[in-house]
Amino acid sequence: MGFGPGAIPVVEKILIIGGNAAGLTAASRAKRIDPRLRITVLEKTPHISYSTCGIPYYFAKAVRADDLLSYTPESFEEERGINVHNNTRVDSIETGRKRVKTVRVDTGEQAEFFYDRLLIATGVKPKIPDIPGTDLKNVFTVTNLQEAIQTNNALESSSTVSIIGAGYVGLEFAETLHAVGKQVHLFEREPQVLPSVDHDMAQIIHYELERFGVRVTVGAKILALVGHEGNVNGVKAAGGIGIQPADMVLLDTGVEPNVDLARDAGVQIGVSGAIAVNASMETNMPAIYAAGNCAESYCPIRRRPTLSYLGTVAAKQGRVAGDNLAARRSEFYGAIGTTVLKVFDLAVARTGLSVREAQAEGMPVVESRIEALDRAAYYPTAKKIWIKLIAGRDTRKLIGAQVVGYGDAARRIDVAATAITAGMRVDELSQLDLAYSPPYGALWDPLLVAAQALSRRLD
Amino acid sequence: MGFGPGAIPVVEKILIIGGNAAGLTAASRAKRIDPRLRITVLEKTPHISYSTCGIPYYFAKAVRADDLLSYTPESFEEERGINVHNNTRVDSIETGRKRVKTVRVDTGEQAEFFYDRLLIATGVKPKIPDIPGTDLKNVFTVTNLQEAIQTNNALESSSTVSIIGAGYVGLEFAETLHAVGKQVHLFEREPQVLPSVDHDMAQIIHYELERFGVRVTVGAKILALVGHEGNVNGVKAAGGIGIQPADMVLLDTGVEPNVDLARDAGVQIGVSGAIAVNASMETNMPAIYAAGNCAESYCPIRRRPTLSYLGTVAAKQGRVAGDNLAARRSEFYGAIGTTVLKVFDLAVARTGLSVREAQAEGMPVVESRIEALDRAAYYPTAKKIWIKLIAGRDTRKLIGAQVVGYGDAARRIDVAATAITAGMRVDELSQLDLAYSPPYGALWDPLLVAAQALSRRLD
Repeated sequence: MGFGPGAIPVVEKILIIGGNAAGLTAASRAKRIDPRLRITVLEKTPHISYSTCGIPYYFAKAVRADDLLSYTPESFEEERGINVHNNTRVDSIETGRKRVKTVRVDTGEQAEFFYDRLLIATGVKPKIPDIPGTDLKNVFTVTNLQEAIQTNNALESSSTVSIIGAGYVGLEFAETLHAVGKQVHLFEREPQVLPSVDHDMAQIIHYELERFGVRVTVGAKILALVGHEGNVNGVKAAGGIGIQPADMVLLDTGVEPNVDLARDAGVQIGVSGAIAVNASMETNMPAIYAAGNCAESYCPIRRRPTLSYLGTVAAKQGRVAGDNLAARRSEFYGAIGTTVLKVFDLAVARTGLSVREAQAEGMPVVESRIEALDRAAYYPTAKKIWIKLIAGRDTRKLIGAQVVGYGDAARRIDVAATAITAGMRVDELSQLDLAYSPPYGALWDPLLVAAQALSRRLD
Repeated sequence: MGFGPGAIPVVEKILIIGGNAAGLTAASRAKRIDPRLRITVLEKTPHISYSTCGIPYYFAKAVRADDLLSYTPESFEEERGINVHNNTRVDSIETGRKRVKTVRVDTGEQAEFFYDRLLIATGVKPKIPDIPGTDLKNVFTVTNLQEAIQTNNALESSSTVSIIGAGYVGLEFAETLHAVGKQVHLFEREPQVLPSVDHDMAQIIHYELERFGVRVTVGAKILALVGHEGNVNGVKAAGGIGIQPADMVLLDTGVEPNVDLARDAGVQIGVSGAIAVNASMETNMPAIYAAGNCAESYCPIRRRPTLSYLGTVAAKQGRVAGDNLAARRSEFYGAIGTTVLKVFDLAVARTGLSVREAQAEGMPVVESRIEALDRAAYYPTAKKIWIKLIAGRDTRKLIGAQVVGYGDAARRIDVAATAITAGMRVDELSQLDLAYSPPYGALWDPLLVAAQALSRRLD
């Protein structure tokens, strides 16, 4: 074999739109596999490579904004050999010529970047509720570090903060803003906090919030944010609640995949609303990949693509995209919505499908809930946890788990997530050989007790 | 259908030898399934239903002896409707007449008990090393609560304690006796502490012991325990170590299955030295079952029966035995040696096979070890852990894991144990959807990073 014309090594140009979990993981991975690749990352905000999940702890002054940043554009370039352009917004993708057109957010300067392969990792954008007053001063969404810094600056002069939406972020904000002395009022449209867990588990969280003095209004219909001289000063809700004072409002009213750029370029959007991808993170367009929260995530329980707004999933998809951008074939196996969350002294964790989600899929399920201590009862640090397990009625396979409590919830949810991923039946789960010694667990781990309880209900 | 002669309900007599994890779990389970059963438990010591694993924390005065007892014989009888005879030693099993002969340890009174079905749950007995001086005063084995109370009483007047054997129990004793102000010297015959983990992980434990002032001698050959006027006052070791002072000696030199009674009755003993059982915990003799640490435990990795000296396994086997004693068919799926252990500030956990154990089985393996923080680096409580993963070279399946560190080791070992049980390949493991938020974990859980590292070595 000689070097034919087709075998001449060509430096390939990889272009990545989006400089956070998915985009930078893909860039780093591709460069590691093939150091010859010329990789360029375009990021519209000033910051790259920061922990979005750490923002609540920045508000609580537990960490500094700088701590959340793993790299500056300069340090990332230098350490990884990857070009980074921050403050650079992509306005269009021309798939025929394989180029994108950009504009500098700070200077207005226009430019073009060519690619051999393109990764779209544009993440999400906030859904702003369709009510009057969201444009008032001191009303914030917090979906990136830039917004977080602006919000934090405004926090100094605020004492009463309303949070609209009691999802993960809303609950974390409630705790961390309370920790720095704010009066917090949490509004949720659904009849419970944290709609991704079932009602009975949400009640425990609701109690914890009120125990620490957070005002919680569920089933809230917000009519408007009201203000004075352009500044927000209250939240107007239906149902006799009237106007509640607030000198700052945080909106945690959901996000949606940021897919306008992709759609305009002819990239297929799935029924979920995110970019359709195969297991190698390829879109329908040649040489165009998508990863992270702008892309669909395969759910092995539902056996169909779903939305995911988790950094863990974005990073994993980014890694797979990086493999394939560097021409190493690899596949993303999917994700099942595993999360953990701190709400004051309570750990809240979930994985797989809730009962409500299973019902929405038409899956017949059986559930069981237990209350237990997370380690030997006589050991001084033993703490209470509640575990709910959900299994397919016919398959006996575990399909969901929720753990809430003052003890170690993350450990049990990770085991449940592993069991779900492996397609484990409740019977096998109930005999798992889990670690025990009095400082760290119970002879019968609460998860095993929960599996036994569920097994009885399946018989 | 009428009542034929065969259908007349008969009260069946279940007899159980041994009143701890396996025996009492079996008794409770059988009674729960079939409340008509007449169940009798025979226990040779004064105590039933206590946490053997809690004994080190009793020495440390973190818990009282009473706290370790879940039930007295009286309270167990009353609550469960199960007869309990403590201080009752079984001297023989007559399988033909289906009876056992007993003697009261305290009064010498003899008796007979008849059974329809018999469970042998006689646990283990200590292996006493064949050296002079083990019969001196203040030399103890601690395999049950009675011995623990005697040891604890003698602790008051001891200041220098030598522990022979650095297995789980020896290490826990080293910590807890140090905590109550004793000078502790730990001797281990093998060239490392905790031989059930690989040498590199054991080094971290060794360092932690010495950091807290425990003297550690590995590769120790003990020649004799020496004494004065019948009391131990030193440990004599070969290799220039000479006689080390000790006014108390604890022997953690191993245990062996307590199978004399079973063997004498014609029950088959496996090549491991424990009672051979099938998955329903039946022995070779009709109507005779065995469970707990006197019985073999199936290892799904080695695909053969092994010894197990863990309370978790004893309890699980007891539950399965209880099912089958009550004529409900169930099976024990096996155990893979998952344990966790506290050694001062260090958590030490392992599951599956170590590299050495895999080599002993002739299994070709690949291993990988990483060092990581157990949660987001910027979060104040982040702590260091080391993770070692071991996979089959050809199968790519995870077969072992070891986690040592100042952070959360139990969580990762439980996930690894679940993955091993499910037969998961390292590639799937490296993409597991594990829970993350900064207070509880890392975006890339250290276990995923370890799996990625192992995956690279397998390629």
